[in-house]
Amino acid sequence: MNGAMANHILGIDLGGTKVMAAVFDASGNIVSRARAKTRAWRDNELVFQTVAHTAEQAIERAGITPDDLRALGIGAPGPLDPDTGIIVESANMTLRNFPLGPRLAEAFHCPAIVENDVNAGTYGEYRKGAARGARHVLGVFVGTGIGGGIIADGALYHGFSKNAGEIGHIIIKAGGPRCGCGNRGCWEALASRTAMTRDIRKAIRRGDKTLLKDKLKQDTDLISGGDLGKAYRTGDKLVVKIMNRAARLIGAGIGSLVNVLSPEIVVLGGGVVEAMGDDFAGRIDEAVRDTAFDFMTRDLRIVRAALGDDAGVTGAALLAQEFVERQ
Amino acid sequence: MNGAMANHILGIDLGGTKVMAAVFDASGNIVSRARAKTRAWRDNELVFQTVAHTAEQAIERAGITPDDLRALGIGAPGPLDPDTGIIVESANMTLRNFPLGPRLAEAFHCPAIVENDVNAGTYGEYRKGAARGARHVLGVFVGTGIGGGIIADGALYHGFSKNAGEIGHIIIKAGGPRCGCGNRGCWEALASRTAMTRDIRKAIRRGDKTLLKDKLKQDTDLISGGDLGKAYRTGDKLVVKIMNRAARLIGAGIGSLVNVLSPEIVVLGGGVVEAMGDDFAGRIDEAVRDTAFDFMTRDLRIVRAALGDDAGVTGAALLAQEFVERQ
Repeated sequence: MNGAMANHILGIDLGGTKVMAAVFDASGNIVSRARAKTRAWRDNELVFQTVAHTAEQAIERAGITPDDLRALGIGAPGPLDPDTGIIVESANMTLRNFPLGPRLAEAFHCPAIVENDVNAGTYGEYRKGAARGARHVLGVFVGTGIGGGIIADGALYHGFSKNAGEIGHIIIKAGGPRCGCGNRGCWEALASRTAMTRDIRKAIRRGDKTLLKDKLKQDTDLISGGDLGKAYRTGDKLVVKIMNRAARLIGAGIGSLVNVLSPEIVVLGGGVVEAMGDDFAGRIDEAVRDTAFDFMTRDLRIVRAALGDDAGVTGAALLAQEFVERQ
Repeated sequence: MNGAMANHILGIDLGGTKVMAAVFDASGNIVSRARAKTRAWRDNELVFQTVAHTAEQAIERAGITPDDLRALGIGAPGPLDPDTGIIVESANMTLRNFPLGPRLAEAFHCPAIVENDVNAGTYGEYRKGAARGARHVLGVFVGTGIGGGIIADGALYHGFSKNAGEIGHIIIKAGGPRCGCGNRGCWEALASRTAMTRDIRKAIRRGDKTLLKDKLKQDTDLISGGDLGKAYRTGDKLVVKIMNRAARLIGAGIGSLVNVLSPEIVVLGGGVVEAMGDDFAGRIDEAVRDTAFDFMTRDLRIVRAALGDDAGVTGAALLAQEFVERQ
């Protein structure tokens, strides 16, 4: 383990397409960042090498050595075991049964904690971002899927399996479109970027016109949040129709969760929400309030995520810091 | 306040159709019970008199006096404020803005705690019933509506509004049937006894045959759990079809909540579930496991409620006892 003078924290955010690492100084400020592409098909060791290399780059750019690290935290796709640091599976990657935490601890000579990536992002927003000061927070991140994190009574909620918060897989429309998980009508099968792309593609086949037609040449093409936002703002009729319907469905899902969890703040993030702008967020807000009970929404705040790409590394670093401070 | 020798606890369960009171001795055993009908249209004072009178009856039957009460707890319809004991509104009653806790404390000279009725029932099952020993519990009670209680990390979860757990109002089928709350497609608009009755009535109008036709002479008639169970077991084709569909939808809703909350135990209760028997519960179990992720359901137990009508008074009494023990 590193010495008593080690006072930097490393935060890592590992996703299916990229990995990001950032070094935080003793005051919690980011002093360096590094990024790399991950490849979902890469196996355990190759992913680990990419992660370790990106972390080393961030450390080097911070002008420190691994000996200056007090702890590190990594947000990663799950299901995973935050107590042992083992990645059990990973929804969009081949990573599985891999002792990510222990391996990182070994490589960097410091305690390493592992947390679900969306939980880490939610925790970052809770401690340093848009949800500061609340005790009950729901993080909702709309991208290729819909991910969530729950802060209950001031702490990340893990539940019995340690992997609670799979909010993208609540059934919003029984019998509805097929989801990647095998069910029909999951929330993310209706209102994620994947679902939006599918609906636009279907409409084009029916003969509808849209500026985004060129973005859908390949069957595997997924329209980016940026392109959706641009088409929406220029008033592309088809995109406006589909996105407004998606906003209603995003709001219906959040409203459902508000009725169950009654958070003080809902943090809305993810590529789609970030790219879409205020009008879209306003429609989501309205749909949440139409769906949930008045006594749940009266003092509820629905806010846009504030940390962007830094949410994950920030949350992971804070969780690592709090872990070593508890020891 | 009563003296140091006072060691009995009074538990009360107030609902839209009946109120029940029970006295618990120092060992937590029920030594007496009393029941009365409530009338939903009665105003604050009349409801209070019914509650107080029923409580007095239970006390008398226990062979004690109010001076022997250490504390009392009441489960009541919400939204309510468990910290002040004020009933804010009550979904199926006219009770509103009523200081039920303070009034009961005054009448019986002991501390009085107020909790949501379904929460109290869930807590009873958690401490003394089917969910003993678990740290994360979801209580699901299917009756005229669908009510829920959440035990998170060993404690009732209240959320920011103090009224979390309105699980009957998650949207399960966007655009689906109208719910009493005003939304379309709420879980309880699809799978409660009210929804089952509506579906059977609709089928009869279409010309379908069923043994339950005589039970639906008036537009306001609601088929009882007992009648549904009898018709189901005798193989009434229409009822079997509608109830099996309801079981799938109950399971889809529970599965959705399991993905979010990841409980260790789901307690299934309420009039419908209690009357329907094992085959129905088995279908719900299957649908939950089809809906939720394997890593959420692998060690999940789905059990029938064990305390029946005693769950609410038991939970309310335990919460009252724990409250005074914390003082």
